[in-house]
Amino acid sequence: MQFHLNGFKPGDPHVLDASACVAPQTDTLPQEVDVLIVGCGPAGLTLAAQLAVFPGIRTCIVEQKEGPLKLGQADGIACRTMEMFEAFNFSEQVLKEACWINEVTFWKPHEQQGGIVRHGRVQDTEDGLSEFPHVVLNQARVHDFYLEFMRNSASRLEPHYSRSFLGLTVDHNAGDYPVTVQLERVDAAHSGTVETLKARYVVGCDGARSGVRRSIGRQLVGDSANHAWGVMDILAVTDFPDIRYKVAVQSENGNLLVIPREGGYLVRLYVEMDKLGEEERVANRGITLDKLIAAAQRILHPYKLEVKEVPWWSVYEIGQRICDKYDDVPEEEAGTRLPHVFIAGDACHTHSPKAGQGMNFSMQDTFNLGWKLAAVLSGQSEPQLLLTYSHERQVVAQELIDFDREWAKMFSDRPQQDASGNSQGVDPKEFQKYFEQHGRFTAGMGTHYRPSSICGENTHQHLATGFVVGTRFHSAPVLRVCDAKPIELGHVAKADGRWRLYAFAAAAEPANDMDSRIGALCKFLEESSDSPVRNYTPAGQDIDAVFDLRAIFQQGHSELNLESMPALLLPRKGRHELLDYEKIFSSRVKNVVDIFELRGINRAQGALVVVRPDQYIAHVLPLDKHQSLADFFAGIMRPAGVASSVI
Amino acid sequence: MQFHLNGFKPGDPHVLDASACVAPQTDTLPQEVDVLIVGCGPAGLTLAAQLAVFPGIRTCIVEQKEGPLKLGQADGIACRTMEMFEAFNFSEQVLKEACWINEVTFWKPHEQQGGIVRHGRVQDTEDGLSEFPHVVLNQARVHDFYLEFMRNSASRLEPHYSRSFLGLTVDHNAGDYPVTVQLERVDAAHSGTVETLKARYVVGCDGARSGVRRSIGRQLVGDSANHAWGVMDILAVTDFPDIRYKVAVQSENGNLLVIPREGGYLVRLYVEMDKLGEEERVANRGITLDKLIAAAQRILHPYKLEVKEVPWWSVYEIGQRICDKYDDVPEEEAGTRLPHVFIAGDACHTHSPKAGQGMNFSMQDTFNLGWKLAAVLSGQSEPQLLLTYSHERQVVAQELIDFDREWAKMFSDRPQQDASGNSQGVDPKEFQKYFEQHGRFTAGMGTHYRPSSICGENTHQHLATGFVVGTRFHSAPVLRVCDAKPIELGHVAKADGRWRLYAFAAAAEPANDMDSRIGALCKFLEESSDSPVRNYTPAGQDIDAVFDLRAIFQQGHSELNLESMPALLLPRKGRHELLDYEKIFSSRVKNVVDIFELRGINRAQGALVVVRPDQYIAHVLPLDKHQSLADFFAGIMRPAGVASSVI
Repeated sequence: MQFHLNGFKPGDPHVLDASACVAPQTDTLPQEVDVLIVGCGPAGLTLAAQLAVFPGIRTCIVEQKEGPLKLGQADGIACRTMEMFEAFNFSEQVLKEACWINEVTFWKPHEQQGGIVRHGRVQDTEDGLSEFPHVVLNQARVHDFYLEFMRNSASRLEPHYSRSFLGLTVDHNAGDYPVTVQLERVDAAHSGTVETLKARYVVGCDGARSGVRRSIGRQLVGDSANHAWGVMDILAVTDFPDIRYKVAVQSENGNLLVIPREGGYLVRLYVEMDKLGEEERVANRGITLDKLIAAAQRILHPYKLEVKEVPWWSVYEIGQRICDKYDDVPEEEAGTRLPHVFIAGDACHTHSPKAGQGMNFSMQDTFNLGWKLAAVLSGQSEPQLLLTYSHERQVVAQELIDFDREWAKMFSDRPQQDASGNSQGVDPKEFQKYFEQHGRFTAGMGTHYRPSSICGENTHQHLATGFVVGTRFHSAPVLRVCDAKPIELGHVAKADGRWRLYAFAAAAEPANDMDSRIGALCKFLEESSDSPVRNYTPAGQDIDAVFDLRAIFQQGHSELNLESMPALLLPRKGRHELLDYEKIFSSRVKNVVDIFELRGINRAQGALVVVRPDQYIAHVLPLDKHQSLADFFAGIMRPAGVASSVI
Repeated sequence: MQFHLNGFKPGDPHVLDASACVAPQTDTLPQEVDVLIVGCGPAGLTLAAQLAVFPGIRTCIVEQKEGPLKLGQADGIACRTMEMFEAFNFSEQVLKEACWINEVTFWKPHEQQGGIVRHGRVQDTEDGLSEFPHVVLNQARVHDFYLEFMRNSASRLEPHYSRSFLGLTVDHNAGDYPVTVQLERVDAAHSGTVETLKARYVVGCDGARSGVRRSIGRQLVGDSANHAWGVMDILAVTDFPDIRYKVAVQSENGNLLVIPREGGYLVRLYVEMDKLGEEERVANRGITLDKLIAAAQRILHPYKLEVKEVPWWSVYEIGQRICDKYDDVPEEEAGTRLPHVFIAGDACHTHSPKAGQGMNFSMQDTFNLGWKLAAVLSGQSEPQLLLTYSHERQVVAQELIDFDREWAKMFSDRPQQDASGNSQGVDPKEFQKYFEQHGRFTAGMGTHYRPSSICGENTHQHLATGFVVGTRFHSAPVLRVCDAKPIELGHVAKADGRWRLYAFAAAAEPANDMDSRIGALCKFLEESSDSPVRNYTPAGQDIDAVFDLRAIFQQGHSELNLESMPALLLPRKGRHELLDYEKIFSSRVKNVVDIFELRGINRAQGALVVVRPDQYIAHVLPLDKHQSLADFFAGIMRPAGVASSVI
């Protein structure tokens, strides 16, 4: 963590100074906002937290419920999500509280004795896939962490609760605030009061029954597997030995998934219930908690399950549905109209809970959208940037849906019992194999954005084969040269809307030679009239306010000489113009394979890896392709001088 | 973290339910308390946090200042202290905020060019000394973490500020509350109001000028090196390249120590100032901040130092002083009188700041005292246990003082310039060597308690050569069998007043054989009339409320069968009688040397390592020496049935 830049300040460094431009929040809604977020679920809160970083952006988030969530539905936190939590500065809290999923065990019918028997055991996440584990934690706690981040931000952003979304209209000729939204207060004291609010942008994070989605005329389309499942969080006594593992049980009496939960005692069980008829809804089945428990007991037989407390339970039907577009611009007007309303999370895609993707994927939606809204509203980019949101996220959601459909089907299939080549049901071994093969997907690493204005071609991919353009930046350990601290390189990327330029130096070149490729790159960025740093960093801001350049050398830290580093790698910042020492790294870390090896970086030539504010790799370039770098940013940014920033 | 044992509870699991027996804290002091702590420094807060775990103990902590510390003096946090913070559940917050000290560099006069030159670089902490690094963080933040822990505890303990200690009297015939204390309110609203309070025990954590120490007629005795030093926290611009390392500079113009600080910009400099005359006090020298900065600039020459902001500075003289006894019982009455007043921290020993021991050692004082007070007040032990506090802590403080005197002397010596065997001054290489040799001391690992009622003889030390009786339990990684999570074994030891029994199983014995040594130990503990678990665990409490037994097997986790483990290793706890799965471990952890190897545990015979509530090793025994185990606890505990608990 870096702090005290603008003078020593006592107290918790997470609590930033409130911005002077933020008015204290009142009970009533503001009349005009830059962004209105509808819904305080994981998608809405990720977006609110991201926008809270920019106190110049007037953000408002409303929620129908009367206060913060106490009891969550979702619980699985994928590795990729943990990486994002690190950017929001609370990963260590989640790591501490959550239950870690380390291994998954697989059970099948016991052919001789009846009942079930363990037939497999696999590591949950392949080695090296992420520096974070897959964990499980109550969604309500994730909300708490986001709310705390918002409260501590310079914006001091807090949700407005007890607001029900009534509808919105978009008038493209209405000037700066084209969206008019109507909300109804639903708390007893103000019940029935309708508030009208004008917004530049509205984002519907209001769940599967999204009112925002309806108001822009979009629909969730998809099928239902007509299969009812129950889910319950329980405190129970059992002799089933794997109750603290993630377990997939296939039995003669149905299937069941065990998800151990935080705190060491709580467990979630997903229990297969009935096959539904065509058009039949699960709600009509009258499935009770007692039936759920009885089904779980049948499946786990001969093991006993004595349920002591059930904090939460529900029934649902499996279904994968998706919206064809995530904004209010009709396909046919894509070239002529700009979006002002977006939908995210369950509002535009729903999954079965068992791949653990609902909450995770939803948060990635708005992590994708947040920095784009901030870039447009701050005048850094043209509003065309916002078209990439639906384009990027809808495609990857479709891929997820396809995976999820297959996965959910396997979960609901009968286990194949005989070895006679009978194709009925699913072979337990195949089921386990599918799980292993798709681990990257469930870990949240399946996302791969296609080339676009913000995602370069992979022309130079060979320079860094482990940093695949369009995928998330895969962190690895490096050593900070200023103080010999081993750190994860990816953790320098905070959710602050900045772009990262990771310059991996060529081996043979001395670090301190200004004629080296790193030296030349720094010179270009500092001096050239084509330099993105010069062109897009607003006057008066720190030199790294838009582009955060970091250099990684192959020499050991004691061979690197800070005194002769380019000035851009020891930038002077803040009101005292203090030196920022945290830009320079060595790849040599004790007992660790070096990052050049781990990520396939060309040792002779080095590489420049350009990473977006949402941690996805935008480009891999040779260190000396300065013009390509300039051209890339020229395509998406507008000069700081001429920006017509709204904030 | 374990939680939800007594039912699901939403919200932050760090916030425990307030105990029904704790009355809301009022502005005025209670009239009678079990323990009064004078002083909210590191020693006082460590004790308050420890006692806050026991809501049945009425603890009161008072502080002369009007509120929490904002700007700290001490900053170094030794590895040993981090281990203790882990027991108080906030190590991860300190790790995140603090500056890590990874390497130390050494500078000496440049013989040819004048000025200074780097001549050495060493790793700060030897590999494997602790699972935690040596870090640096503002003392005020350490206070904050303790205060939060207290606020979240079942006791909801908060300090009473603006209370000045006037004096105390001890009347050994006065019944349950032999100590009478007078305090004066010093806030404007109540200025001059004197409050009188009766206490069973009073602990003076009121600093080097301790009023509590004075009131029991004890004195700090020692010498002063008659050498003035200055210390300042600065935000500065410098071209000195090691400004983010811990640096010892020996120059022709005096000596200087650089301590990089949290946040990436702040730095502390310890600067050698003048030699003082006999009996001269530093306060009389008129050392100003300007003089301090000028001295630092001279020492760092030819590097520039441009100071931008100085949040805090001070001058001091080096001196090591210590009290001969830490309680109110005169040496000659040691056998006949029991202590009721204690002193801790700076009240009984002072050091030079540069070995970074003041704050660290002070906190270990009260971590030693806290569990003993809790054991006596809860009726678990006889009050004779309290005699061990002064006995243990005074001896190790004397050792520290001796080390510190030598260390501080070296720091103030001129660097030896010629290689002619001239014995004037200190050889820079010797200085560096001394630093390396004494790393364990500065890391806080120098403490080694002598045999006593709570520290066994080392008769069986050969069974676990790396767990030295009388030293702190040195953690190592193990794998939790219930869920395959790799954890640090030492981290199961929380600051909860419980004893840990780590049973390391013999290799050849199957884990689930009740005739194995582990099986027999469990049988003894569960069934024998000599069992400490049976004899000292109060009725109605969880079976592990006093003794927390953990077993570590040499088999891999998948070879261990939970279903046939002894019941004591899967105890049923809490209101629902849920199973606690977190008692059983495997020594086999991927890519890690196993704990038997790391700690020299006899693989053929195993070992039982008994660890005190303050994490110090009380005993190493063969697994089958049941009677020795029983005898050890019979010497310090009293049967739960006959306990005359005060709480």
